[in-house]
Amino acid sequence: MSQENVIQRLQDEFERLPGIGPKSAQRIVYWLLNGEAEDAKRLASTIVEVKESVHFCSRCFNYAADELCGICKSAEVGDRDHSIICVVSEPRDIAAIEKTHEYHGTYHVLGGEISPMDGVGPDDLTIRDLLTRLAGTGEHEVREVLLATNPNVEGETTAVYLSRLIKPLGIKTTRLASGLPVGGDLEFADTLSLGRAIEARLEI
Amino acid sequence: MSQENVIQRLQDEFERLPGIGPKSAQRIVYWLLNGEAEDAKRLASTIVEVKESVHFCSRCFNYAADELCGICKSAEVGDRDHSIICVVSEPRDIAAIEKTHEYHGTYHVLGGEISPMDGVGPDDLTIRDLLTRLAGTGEHEVREVLLATNPNVEGETTAVYLSRLIKPLGIKTTRLASGLPVGGDLEFADTLSLGRAIEARLEI
Repeated sequence: MSQENVIQRLQDEFERLPGIGPKSAQRIVYWLLNGEAEDAKRLASTIVEVKESVHFCSRCFNYAADELCGICKSAEVGDRDHSIICVVSEPRDIAAIEKTHEYHGTYHVLGGEISPMDGVGPDDLTIRDLLTRLAGTGEHEVREVLLATNPNVEGETTAVYLSRLIKPLGIKTTRLASGLPVGGDLEFADTLSLGRAIEARLEI
Repeated sequence: MSQENVIQRLQDEFERLPGIGPKSAQRIVYWLLNGEAEDAKRLASTIVEVKESVHFCSRCFNYAADELCGICKSAEVGDRDHSIICVVSEPRDIAAIEKTHEYHGTYHVLGGEISPMDGVGPDDLTIRDLLTRLAGTGEHEVREVLLATNPNVEGETTAVYLSRLIKPLGIKTTRLASGLPVGGDLEFADTLSLGRAIEARLEI
């Protein structure tokens, strides 16, 4: 029953993807079986293309097809601000920040966050490369490092660790503001976020 | 920014799949980027393999890798009952019925259901092939046709249409029972299903 085998194997492959259960996997497989061969092949070839062409930017460790990622290239030709570096834990965080259109500097991807519980220490992250960038001379002088690690224990730990390394270099270090999510109800805000919002209250 | 292009293109490809939105697509793409190259390539090659190796069974129109599907092959060697044919609208319905382990006959896939609204008439389905199978002589004599089309307007229409064609051939036609879903609460049952359950009540 080899035709059932290959269908079952594809279902298993889809089930391994995050957020896809057996029912969704089956639905996708039958959708592909029903659809055009070109559509399925384009999906397959794009998966291969992504894995083959995408690696890490040699400067900021974002995903890149060339030596430098698109953002570092833009900075290179003066389209983005070299003097501020936003430090994030994963490349996907860059996508989230870029969507806000509020940030026009460069990035640095740590490749994780300090987490003794998971055995991740400072040496497992790209912290050394960040310090090399900060020590870089001349035209690329950095004025500010925005620590945009996650607002959880590991992210906070990493931010505190980094700020202790960076402040002595005379570089301003900032952190993303915590507070109430925009559009949320005060009534339903969690205590921690509400506490932070009161602590960081602004004069209007 | 070609590296963002190929990542974005893969995200778009995943978004086209049923049940996958922008957030899920992004999550899957970053999961693939983070994961092993072999895993991603195996997914891609299985997609291609399914599209290249799977077509329709020449007898029952289920998905098949060879001339006959696994179920028709089993029937051929006597492992399944040739004398009863279960008629379904799509190959995925076969998977659902097989999971029950209650049915041991063969199948016939119509490739849809009669739906004047969508412009699907009897000639768009594999009804002619079904009648040819039923008229088949000798060893493959069919005693019963179980009409397992969906319990909705199109499915019922198709079942009634087929039963009118098949009954004159002296072949028993049956329909899946309607009633209360097992494990459900009577209180929350829909009126139609509850009505059917009363109509088809059984003596115990």
